[in-house]
Amino acid sequence: MTGIFITFEGPDGAGKTTQVKAFAERLTAQGYDVVLTREPGGTAISDKIRSLILDPAHKEMADITEVLLYAASRAQHVQEVIVPALQSGKLVVCDRFVDASIAYQGYGLGIAIDQVAAVNRLATGGLVPDRTYLLDVSVEEGRDRLQARTGLDRIEQKGAPYHERVRAGFHELAARHPERIQLIHASKPADEVAEDIFADFTAWLTHK
Amino acid sequence: MTGIFITFEGPDGAGKTTQVKAFAERLTAQGYDVVLTREPGGTAISDKIRSLILDPAHKEMADITEVLLYAASRAQHVQEVIVPALQSGKLVVCDRFVDASIAYQGYGLGIAIDQVAAVNRLATGGLVPDRTYLLDVSVEEGRDRLQARTGLDRIEQKGAPYHERVRAGFHELAARHPERIQLIHASKPADEVAEDIFADFTAWLTHK
Repeated sequence: MTGIFITFEGPDGAGKTTQVKAFAERLTAQGYDVVLTREPGGTAISDKIRSLILDPAHKEMADITEVLLYAASRAQHVQEVIVPALQSGKLVVCDRFVDASIAYQGYGLGIAIDQVAAVNRLATGGLVPDRTYLLDVSVEEGRDRLQARTGLDRIEQKGAPYHERVRAGFHELAARHPERIQLIHASKPADEVAEDIFADFTAWLTHK
Repeated sequence: MTGIFITFEGPDGAGKTTQVKAFAERLTAQGYDVVLTREPGGTAISDKIRSLILDPAHKEMADITEVLLYAASRAQHVQEVIVPALQSGKLVVCDRFVDASIAYQGYGLGIAIDQVAAVNRLATGGLVPDRTYLLDVSVEEGRDRLQARTGLDRIEQKGAPYHERVRAGFHELAARHPERIQLIHASKPADEVAEDIFADFTAWLTHK
């Protein structure tokens, strides 16, 4: 596959959506053929699975059901969107990927990390991003930014200890994969965060 | 767990629905506390997943997405319905379970059997039925019975070679687990099939 696969990760309220969009626009302006997508979702089937997962009415959802639904949504997304785009040489920018499942379902819900990883290897056919930007803010700051929104989804409604475990999980992943995951301090103003990401991307591309 | 867990398996058109109902009614009449359920489905969340899987409009669904969705539906069903019923000593009769995924997605779609089995072990927490009735008819006979219905779902619409692989898969499973899976010749009249199943169940219960 000749394309480039970039993912953005981080806790809720870290400003991911803004940064993903800014990054994709900047690269498009530079002439890259960019595919901007997100998880869970990204295809008609995946979007229906996304609605199932995030519906605040589904309070009885078992943790392992959640793991398998995220993986199902991801499998469809990889096969229908990401792999074809990479095969035709595009730059794919994806809001969340496997790292999110390891952090949220593995570290957050306490499901064995190796089981979450195994299910996701099956779902993705072993596809790994070329580079991952991990946007990091404290749980309190993430919460403050989320409060400004209305209608938190089922995952966002979980308590602070859960979100602390998720954040610690992301840090653990960054420590384990320093060659791929770049930690970005995201409590700065959005345009400075965007600059940090773009500077890293340019440097990474030069040395790749 | 003090209950008894019985599953019914077999190709589409083998008369499963009729037999499951007859079996459950007969045991209820004998004083058993029976829980009759089915897959995919059996809970509110699982039923929504079932609709996603079977929707004939979802022609683009990737095979691995199908495996993961069935497993997600099953995980919810096991945790919300089957395990609580078995823990309270009930007799659970379930229309399809893990064997169906091995036969349909493993043998039928050609996904590695050990991967389908691993995902399902995770989904079920390793729960295995106490006894399984495999209703067997030829693919032609199953097709003939299905033709009488209107509106075949996405799986039923697949061609004869697929359904031949599924049937061979069921036979392979029966050969591998003779202590659990009882093959039932299901091309006979429904009341004779029901007698065969009940006779086996009575004998099995005596020697259990």
